[in-house]
Amino acid sequence: MTEEDIRNEIELLARQARAASYQLSQLSTEEKNTILVAMAEGIRAAAPVLMAANAEDLKAAVEKGLSGAMVDRLRLDEKRIEAMAVGIAEVAELPDPVGEVMESWSRPNGLRLEQVRVPIGTIGIIYESRPNVTSDAAVLCLKTGNATILRGGSEAIHSNRAIAEVLTRAGEAAGLPSHAIQLIPFTDRSSVSALCSMDKWLDVIIPRGGRGLIETVVAQARMPVIKHYDGICHTFVDQAADPDMGVAITVNAKTHKPGVCNALETLLVHASIAESFLPKVAAALQEKGVELRGCERTQAFIECAPATEDDWSTEYLDLILSVKVVDSLDEAIAHINTYGSHHSDCIVTQDGAAAAKFLSAVDSACVFHNASTRFADGGEFGFGAEIGISTEKLHARGPMGLRELTSYQYRIHGEGQVR
Amino acid sequence: MTEEDIRNEIELLARQARAASYQLSQLSTEEKNTILVAMAEGIRAAAPVLMAANAEDLKAAVEKGLSGAMVDRLRLDEKRIEAMAVGIAEVAELPDPVGEVMESWSRPNGLRLEQVRVPIGTIGIIYESRPNVTSDAAVLCLKTGNATILRGGSEAIHSNRAIAEVLTRAGEAAGLPSHAIQLIPFTDRSSVSALCSMDKWLDVIIPRGGRGLIETVVAQARMPVIKHYDGICHTFVDQAADPDMGVAITVNAKTHKPGVCNALETLLVHASIAESFLPKVAAALQEKGVELRGCERTQAFIECAPATEDDWSTEYLDLILSVKVVDSLDEAIAHINTYGSHHSDCIVTQDGAAAAKFLSAVDSACVFHNASTRFADGGEFGFGAEIGISTEKLHARGPMGLRELTSYQYRIHGEGQVR
Repeated sequence: MTEEDIRNEIELLARQARAASYQLSQLSTEEKNTILVAMAEGIRAAAPVLMAANAEDLKAAVEKGLSGAMVDRLRLDEKRIEAMAVGIAEVAELPDPVGEVMESWSRPNGLRLEQVRVPIGTIGIIYESRPNVTSDAAVLCLKTGNATILRGGSEAIHSNRAIAEVLTRAGEAAGLPSHAIQLIPFTDRSSVSALCSMDKWLDVIIPRGGRGLIETVVAQARMPVIKHYDGICHTFVDQAADPDMGVAITVNAKTHKPGVCNALETLLVHASIAESFLPKVAAALQEKGVELRGCERTQAFIECAPATEDDWSTEYLDLILSVKVVDSLDEAIAHINTYGSHHSDCIVTQDGAAAAKFLSAVDSACVFHNASTRFADGGEFGFGAEIGISTEKLHARGPMGLRELTSYQYRIHGEGQVR
Repeated sequence: MTEEDIRNEIELLARQARAASYQLSQLSTEEKNTILVAMAEGIRAAAPVLMAANAEDLKAAVEKGLSGAMVDRLRLDEKRIEAMAVGIAEVAELPDPVGEVMESWSRPNGLRLEQVRVPIGTIGIIYESRPNVTSDAAVLCLKTGNATILRGGSEAIHSNRAIAEVLTRAGEAAGLPSHAIQLIPFTDRSSVSALCSMDKWLDVIIPRGGRGLIETVVAQARMPVIKHYDGICHTFVDQAADPDMGVAITVNAKTHKPGVCNALETLLVHASIAESFLPKVAAALQEKGVELRGCERTQAFIECAPATEDDWSTEYLDLILSVKVVDSLDEAIAHINTYGSHHSDCIVTQDGAAAAKFLSAVDSACVFHNASTRFADGGEFGFGAEIGISTEKLHARGPMGLRELTSYQYRIHGEGQVR
């Protein structure tokens, strides 16, 4: 396909998505839930078809020499297909934010105003490898009345096509409008650029993948992009901390699941407790196999490798922790605002005033007092589902559930008022 | 200055803005209001200085041969300076959205979560000609704890510099952090590009000006842009409309202030009342000097010029109105969603079901039942102040007041919880 062919094809999909979005916005919650339940059943019934398509991707992956971990992420087995179906059925059970009256008020001239949640409209999702994202993203967008255009990675193209086809066929039999869920059926790189230029038809793009993918989309997109960048998360153990709590939270945030964005990357310790606290926390961390990289002052209290300037802005996603001794709450806050990624940061302290200051001065999506940063998660927040954790400050910040996939509209009721 | 010099200079401003934003976020409402009151007094006291600076801009404008209307928009006289001061003092009186707890809830594990309004952080404002925007934008951002970088047009550079200097000097004497309000002191075109690349330091850019300016910013910006595009607003007079109300709303929306974005541009009339309604509304509009451009069916009922396909997507901003006869509510909705700009649209009807359908199916920021689209305005909504009317669907849609200049943060309170 030439670049122009690709552009024309993507524009067609985008126009169709816009048209579908107007039908989707008019579906009732019951109608959407009926469609979702049918989709879950469709996925379940199609397990053999999905596994056959997936086998083609797995074969290509092995031929291309992808790592064992990569091949495993691609794999669809009966358990994973069942999990996909259960996930869809769970979304049907969640409350629908569309139609909620966020605020209503009247004006002295008698006008009655309502601010009402409505679907965003059309959402582009660009993602890598794991085929379950095709289903997860499509159903969250559907529940909130949005049309989706999905652009998955080339490694999973057969699986993605099969999943999208099953969702569409099962959904349409239950009332899903045509073109509500569209997968770009090819994976040429220029399809990303083409998608990024469709601001007339696409309201937002959500890239789900590594920094490289997000940067590419940000550089090209003319519409808003909801970014899910790194988590360089901190825990500050204050002078008024309960040391055992400090150890427990540090160990949990670092070692519970080191490869995720809400895992701890840098520990800050108040100088006045460093001598007693550092050996204690170091022993607990080293027992879990964590490699420590400390500032000069840290090295005076515990055995560890020296931290370089780069360590303060590194997301290890591994059993490595940088450690710094700071002289004050203010220094901790300044360090976090300078080197962090504004994702999730924690203070451990029994001093309520210090906690209040930390929470309001740290410029991060989630700020914790005496709790592990691992709780920065839509599920843990009680959202029921999560499309990602936004590091944006506009529209949605932090864990994004269904509500964050909506916009709003002002509805104004009059009896003939003019100015 | 070379492009590199400009870039370096803008990066310095952007870094300083970020640092200032952390101080601004910690100011109390009282502290911010004290600063605002001092700024209002500063502007009032500096009237002669401001008029002297403005005289330089006016001289250059006349030499450049700008139109009388353009020169008038640039002009600062005592009345306009007093209006600027009053505007600042009024912002001091408005409620401060920062710190508001939007939602709070607890989880079964005892974690207590709060979603709290916080400043966005740093805001770039790029605007054209009118120097009062320097003050209006800066004080709305200040009230909401945001640092601003202002980039005004070259025609008003002397006035803008003088206003920014007065605001800064008066503000700093009352506790304003350094670099909270920074005007780019030069107007090279490449300063816009440089600003658009500062996504590490600038959280959002708000362009205030024509479509050309917005398009330039959208094409270059790596951070979110809040767009204020055209208003191609519609009024649909339904078969169940009160005809007198239809005439009154149409005339008001078209003629009250034709040059603004919430003015009416296209009138849609239900076929079943066209024969009686069109002559009535045409007479009232023609009396006000409005030129009518009608579809073929319209031309059968009234004397008017023929409308071309282009007319349906034209924002006249003038005493011109396109008129179309439609066969149904659905056709009206489809026309508006296809040709409109998703800004403000109205249905005139006594039929509640038709109104409800119109309000929920028309994909616009503001949808009106039996009231003029001229009410799509932050002041008319009761917001007290307005930074613009967003045609975005993300973050802020429709009239933007102080609340729309904030983001939020999740604050999570625990007693040592880990996962």
